[in-house]
This record gives sequence, C-alpha cells and structure tokens, in this order.
Amino acid sequence: MFPHKIAIVYGERRITYREFADEAERVAGVIASRIEPGDRIAYLTPNTPELLIAHFAVPLAGGVLVAINSRLARPEIEYILGHSGASILFVDSEILASVGDLQSTVPSIEEVVEISDLEFGLPGGHVPMGQVPYAEFLARSAELSTDEISWHVDDERAPISINYTSGTTGKPKGVVYTHRGAYLNALGEVFHNQFTSASVYLWTLPMFHCNGWCTPWAVTAAGGTHVALRAVRPDVIWDLIDGAGVTNLCGAPTVCTIIATAPQAHFLERTLRITTAGAPPSPTIIAQLETLGIQVVHVYGLTEVYGPFTICEYQAEWDELELPERARQLSRQGVGMVQAESARIVDEHMRDVPADGETIGEIVLRGNNVMLEYFRDRKATRDAFRGGWFHTGDLGVMHPDRYIELKDRAKDIIISGGENISTVEVEQAIVSHPAVLEAAVVGVPHERWGERPVAHVVLRDGHDVSNEELRIHTRTLVAAFKVPDRFVIDVSLPHTATGKVQKFDLRLRDTASPL
Amino acid sequence: MFPHKIAIVYGERRITYREFADEAERVAGVIASRIEPGDRIAYLTPNTPELLIAHFAVPLAGGVLVAINSRLARPEIEYILGHSGASILFVDSEILASVGDLQSTVPSIEEVVEISDLEFGLPGGHVPMGQVPYAEFLARSAELSTDEISWHVDDERAPISINYTSGTTGKPKGVVYTHRGAYLNALGEVFHNQFTSASVYLWTLPMFHCNGWCTPWAVTAAGGTHVALRAVRPDVIWDLIDGAGVTNLCGAPTVCTIIATAPQAHFLERTLRITTAGAPPSPTIIAQLETLGIQVVHVYGLTEVYGPFTICEYQAEWDELELPERARQLSRQGVGMVQAESARIVDEHMRDVPADGETIGEIVLRGNNVMLEYFRDRKATRDAFRGGWFHTGDLGVMHPDRYIELKDRAKDIIISGGENISTVEVEQAIVSHPAVLEAAVVGVPHERWGERPVAHVVLRDGHDVSNEELRIHTRTLVAAFKVPDRFVIDVSLPHTATGKVQKFDLRLRDTASPL
Repeated sequence: MFPHKIAIVYGERRITYREFADEAERVAGVIASRIEPGDRIAYLTPNTPELLIAHFAVPLAGGVLVAINSRLARPEIEYILGHSGASILFVDSEILASVGDLQSTVPSIEEVVEISDLEFGLPGGHVPMGQVPYAEFLARSAELSTDEISWHVDDERAPISINYTSGTTGKPKGVVYTHRGAYLNALGEVFHNQFTSASVYLWTLPMFHCNGWCTPWAVTAAGGTHVALRAVRPDVIWDLIDGAGVTNLCGAPTVCTIIATAPQAHFLERTLRITTAGAPPSPTIIAQLETLGIQVVHVYGLTEVYGPFTICEYQAEWDELELPERARQLSRQGVGMVQAESARIVDEHMRDVPADGETIGEIVLRGNNVMLEYFRDRKATRDAFRGGWFHTGDLGVMHPDRYIELKDRAKDIIISGGENISTVEVEQAIVSHPAVLEAAVVGVPHERWGERPVAHVVLRDGHDVSNEELRIHTRTLVAAFKVPDRFVIDVSLPHTATGKVQKFDLRLRDTASPL
Repeated sequence: MFPHKIAIVYGERRITYREFADEAERVAGVIASRIEPGDRIAYLTPNTPELLIAHFAVPLAGGVLVAINSRLARPEIEYILGHSGASILFVDSEILASVGDLQSTVPSIEEVVEISDLEFGLPGGHVPMGQVPYAEFLARSAELSTDEISWHVDDERAPISINYTSGTTGKPKGVVYTHRGAYLNALGEVFHNQFTSASVYLWTLPMFHCNGWCTPWAVTAAGGTHVALRAVRPDVIWDLIDGAGVTNLCGAPTVCTIIATAPQAHFLERTLRITTAGAPPSPTIIAQLETLGIQVVHVYGLTEVYGPFTICEYQAEWDELELPERARQLSRQGVGMVQAESARIVDEHMRDVPADGETIGEIVLRGNNVMLEYFRDRKATRDAFRGGWFHTGDLGVMHPDRYIELKDRAKDIIISGGENISTVEVEQAIVSHPAVLEAAVVGVPHERWGERPVAHVVLRDGHDVSNEELRIHTRTLVAAFKVPDRFVIDVSLPHTATGKVQKFDLRLRDTASPL
C-alpha cells in the first residue's frame, strides 16, 4: 500500500516498504529452499532490521521463528537451540564473537548465518566459525524461483513462532504462537496503541520477548514506521524521539525511568505514548512522564499470551483524582484487551473469587491470544491448561469495577529491568557448585531495575567458597542479568512445615539492607 | 469497561453502556426463551437504539438478525420475511402503520413486537394488529433466569445475521454473515475509521445495509458513542455534529451532498471523517467538504462482503496534486482493507488482468469478510463463488499502484441515494401489468441521488395505459425509491443479436434529456 514509504529506520539506514517486502521474500526464498514446513529458524540478534524482516520472512518460508534472548548465557542459548531443533541460526556479529561457535555443540544446526551490523561498525567475519555472511545467504535467492513464495496462510492454526520463557522449573519452555493468534493479537495492539500509517514506533522492547508483543506485525499492518534500535541508551532514544518523530514505544518500567531521567529529557508538544509492563508504573514515574507530556499506559501479560493481555484502560473520571490516587488506579493490571477475553481470578476449584478487591485468587486467561502449547512438553501444557483456562500462576484480586490487580507472582519470578529471572533456575546454578548444600534466591526492590536477585547459600559441611567464586560459577551457567547482586552465606534457611524455603522471611531481611 | 459512559444518544435519550448491555441481555433472554439456535429474528425499524441493541441481543439469544430495509414495499418485505422464515418481527410504530399486518400473510411469524418511538412522538398501539408492545416483551425477562445468557460464541462460523440484497435476478438474496466475519470486519472498521473510546459515530448509514458495515459492533468494541438517527435530515445532522461532537459518519454521496450543501454547514475546527461508498465522491463534493474541514474517505464493497472491502487509502504525495487530479485518485476504489485480502481483477479464465489501468476485468474478492453463502440458495452460492473467489459482477481495472478502479457495474444495478435498485426487479414489476409487453429500466445521472431509474415500455397490441397508471402499479410491487422517475412508451426496444436489450443506447438517449 505504501511502497515508497520508509518502513524501517536504523541509524542512517532507510528501508522502504517495497525493500522490506523484497528482502523478506528473498530471505524466505532461501530458507524455503532448505527446510520442510514447520522447521524452526533461530535468530540471535538485537532489535535490528534483520530481525524485523525475519518476522515476515520466516513464516513466509513456512518456518517457525525462534527469536532468542541475546542476553542469555551460552548454555541457555544452547538449550533453546537444541530444544527447538533449529536448523538455521542467524546471529549478530557482536553476539557471535561473544558466544562463539554454536554449531559444533548443537547438532540440529545446519547453517549459521552471520549478520554484520555495518551501521554500528561491526563488519563481522572476524571470528571464522564456518558461518555464512548474511549478504551471501541473501544472494542465493538470485538462483531461486520466487514463484514458490506465497503470502497466503494455509492453516491459520499452524505455528508462526516459538518464544522461550524462563518458566519456573528452571529450564526455558517453548511457547508456541500460531498465525491466527499473532494476527488477532497484532490487530488488538493496533487498536490499543492507536497505530496508523503516521505512527513511528521505537523498538525499545526486545523483539525476542513475545515477538515484541506482536508489534512487528501490528506496526506493519498499520503501515507505520519502525525505528530499530541496537541498545537502550537514553541519548540515542531522545535523539530518535526528536529526530525520527517517535509516537509510540513499549518497555519495562526501567525504560520509562531511563527516558524520564535522561539529561536530554524535555517537554514534548506532540503525543508520545509509552506502554509499560512487568511492574506497575510508580507515582514518581507517572509524574515525571506527565511533566514531559508523555502518556503512560499500563498493560499486563506473559509470554504465554503473546505479550499483553490486559490493559489498565483509562477512565475519564480519573482526570479528577490527585496523583497518588490516580497512580493507584493506573497500577492495576486492568481489563482484557479488545482481542482478548476477560481475565478471571479463580480459587482452587476454578470458581470466580468475589469482585471485592480483596479476595486473592489465581489469574487465569483464555482466548485467541493464548498460546497453542508448550513445544514438545505435553505435560506442562496439560498442567497449564487445567480446567480449560491458562493458569498464569500469578495471584491477584478482582476489583468491583472488574479491573484485576496483581498481588504476587505465584511463580518464583523476579522481574529485573523487564527480564524475567526464574529463581529456581538461578538456585539450580548455584547448587551445582560442589561446595553448596542449599540455595534460595529472592527478589529485592531496586531503584533502577525494579528488582534484583539476592542469593542465600548454605554450604556443605567442611566446604568453603568465596562470594566471588560463587558469582563466577553462576555466571558460567546463566545470563549476567540473572546473577545475584549479593550472596549471603547462611548457617541454615528458614523452612515451612512442608520443607519449602520461607522466602518471605528472607525477602524481608534483604529489603532491610538495600542493595 | 465503561459502564457509566454514554453508549447511545438518541434525541434526548441517553443510554449508558451498562444500560445498553442490560437491555441486550433482557431482549436476548426473552428471545432465547422462544426460539431454537439459528432461528431468524427480523427488525423493521429506522436507525433507532432498539436496532443497535438488536445487533447484540439477537446473536446473544442464539438467533440470526435480519434487519430489513424499511424503505421497501410490502410485497418485498413479505418476501424477505417469508424467505428468511423469521419467527419474531420487531417493527417500528410508524412502519407498522404504513405496511400493516404482516403476521397474517407470513406464516412463519409467531409474534410481532411493536417499538414505539416516544422520542419522536410515535407512541404506537394505534393500529391494533395483535402486536405486543416492546416494553411488554421486555418485561417478560423479569420472569426468566438470566443464567442462560452467555456472551461466549461456541461456533465462530455460525450465522450472526442475514442481509437481503436486491441482487440481479429480481428477488432479494439473503447474504449470510458469520460471527467470525463480523468480528474481523468490525476490527477492520475500527482501524480504518480510527475508532477510539473518544469517537462519536452518527448513524446516517442505515443499519439494514450490511448491518451498517458492521459498525454497531466496531464502535462498541472501541467503547465509542453511537448517535442514533431516525431520518437523514440536514438540520438534524448539523445539530448533532455540533451538539454531540460527531467525529465519524458514513453514507452514500447523497449524504455528503446533504451535509455539504445544508444551510447550517460551517467550518469545523476538529476532525470529522465521512466514509462514503456507492459512487466515487465528485471533485465538487470533495472541495465542498474540504472547505468545511471535513475529511472524506472513499470505500467500495457489497452486501456480500460485510460492507466495504477496499479503501482508497490516502497517499501523502497526493497532497501536492491539484484538486481535479486528487479527486481522480480519490475516485478509485483502492486497495484491500486491513482485514481483507487484496481485490483481484480477472478475465473469464480467472487470470489477473495486467495492472495497466486499462484492461477491464471482473472484480473478485475472497477472505474472512466475504459472506458464508446465500441463505437457502445453493445454486446462487455456487455460481457466485466459482473458481474459489466471490464474483462481484462489477467490472474494473487494476492500476500500476495496485489500486482498483470500478468501471461499470456488470449487474444491472442503479445506485440511487445509496440504495441499490435492481433494474430486473423493476422491469418485472412493470411487465406484470396486463397492458405491458416489454420493459427496460436504465439509470440516468441525477444531481441529488446520483442516479435515478427511467423505464422504457412497449405495450401489447391493442392496449393502452397512462404513465400514471404504470407508476401506481409499479409502486404497489416495489419500494417508492425504485419507481422510475419517467416512463417512456416506445414502439420497440433496441436489441442485441442475442436478444438482450441494448441499454447503453437507451441510457445515452435518456441522459440527453435530464430528469
């Protein structure tokens, strides 16, 4: 519809919609020539144009996109590549140099394609590990017929992508999205973000989280402009807000804080809308953003529901409230988005709890934007969907106005800078050290990151280990952002009658001595 | 989500979203107590709140909504009621007084419910024909359990409504819409109209046309405000544009003309968007509306595709064109809407014609917002979907920019004031007069209505009949707006080699002597 319009801005690069479609078709052609329908294609890149293009190219090739969190440690990446059985891996030069050769340890990978980020002075090819340069991969399309490429979807319930979550069991689970779910969720995002062809969307939200909440498809559906972004840096963000005319962005509260507290921050005459999730926006941040003329919208969701599922839809009468009370309203997780069903809060017998804002129950979700299944994990799928609804594991209350409010993450999850950290996973990493008998990881409030993990460790009799050694050991197994900020060696851990660690007590103690 | 917000404005009436939902549930409860799932429920009313409510109440009851064109003549209404097999008929007092008792001639109707429009001084009950007052019907809900009412849709491909079109064969065909199609088309309408909870939609477009292009569902999905409207009158429309803060309305070019040329017309500071279909907006009307600060959007569709299917999406570079050239761009029917597939223009072998803006072919459509079928007409359904695409019968060209342009309605259709008139139907009505041997009806350009029908009649030997008698005879069989403005008695009609009337010649002649 807009062939000459700029679809993607990235540094000095400008990609029109025609070029966007052409490259998607070329990438799709080469991928299709090498795979069977339903094969997984992995990407390990920051928010570059190539990853945006992959959101169209991989499905177009009949493949299933696996966009991997580039912040993960090598063993985590290996696990995801192995579990998904990805046959082609596209990897950014910088990440390739850091994680090293993955092909030799992941048998399913047939080819590694290196994406050189010339825009950021990362020409690639420095680490020869059998990888094919992206340009060379693309060039193969010249020899292929393009007649095979069809934008028609034969089976709307076929997988379009798998997004790996750091669930509760320690090992990431592969959340399967369908074409249908992605389509409907994208349309819902278009509505709630009010995307139009005049929208300019800044990619502060990683596309490897829930396919960027389906926003690659949503902004494109509206004919808006994507602004790709290699790293979340306040000066770059403000340059783009001003220079590219950004109208929308999404991110964790950390992103809000970075934007609000940047030295470059200034009042905006036009509308900039930030959609935030992961934790409620604080009164402080709401006030700061409002001073800058920025509108903040609070949403709630999980990987299993294609990103946001509920939205704290603003009610006109809140205009009259004082900031603390308004912030209290906005801190609630809200109501089902237009493409979603209503969220329910249920007791253990799947009965709705009273809408009294007090009775705690579990948040359960259902509808078109709920995942198909956990990839190759029937047991976890069955368990998650018991009673016909997806169990979030999150605890909340239903207010009399039918807005839900999250009270506690039932799963042992710490949200730090918008990233989920599974405490179980970190505990398992620590416990794998020969000197460690038991470990418990808890989340402690942190000004910049929202929460940060703290580890409580009990050593085996006769063993000794330094905090630094534990830190280094943990780092070899999990991503840097998951490594606890503090290791506390305890004589014992408080346990419940059933033997579970009483994390509540630990958290209280840690909160008393801030990080 | 917005229980206290005004959902519907009608004269002095104000209906909140809570009241809207409550009444929909009450109406649904009473209907559900009397029907089997899939039964048809007919409405014969202007654009009143009750018809808006019916768009939720009837599906909620498991019924299928048949909103009948209130401008039709009694025999046409009887045909539609009989063909759909409607069991309950809701009818407006004024229309009831005019069409009379329908229950006695349509065996399927078990109950007639009279809607008294107190807002417009039409208390009803003046014509006792066994009808039940709407209030009495509603009151029955008090005795019913509301537990039965579920907003959940079990089968998304189940019918939600049947819209009767004045096809080409003379008899209206029942176009079956599904829940799925209505849902997706409504989301598409939300996007293209940029509906939000701040939208105020004025009901100039009849809801009995394609369920008002699914806008009852679209505006409600966005949480906007409906402004119901009994009749399209320029003074009332301008009062509402100003008084109710109307942001959007839809209608035929006639509606644009009425608004642009009203004595009350004045410049608007805020955005008012008029979406028009049925004929391209003329340069004159575009200029007039632009002077008033009103944005006009041109769309194209048919009853079979839930209303609009293509939109003449505005390209920024058109800003620089002079008005005649810009109007030429805007007069094109455009590209598929976001929820639709691309429109194709094909030759008789279903091959795409070249995108040269010159080669004429038939416009064929496919996708989620194409009807399920013609109700109880397998042959017509099969014929319409030959080759797997819906055949519009309209002829057009594909431009190099992939915008389609309609060149001629292949079906013998005259569009007068946004209403389709089947020339075949009118010809059959005229020929049914004993004095008439042959009749041909053609469309002649008309300043106010776009087109008006003119009839050419050949009499049987030895018979004579006045124009006035022919007019009265035709009026008894078809709606007033379908009755030709002029009857011309000819000695013979020009025929093609295959015996078809050469309407092209007749039209040329008629255009030379304007109405």
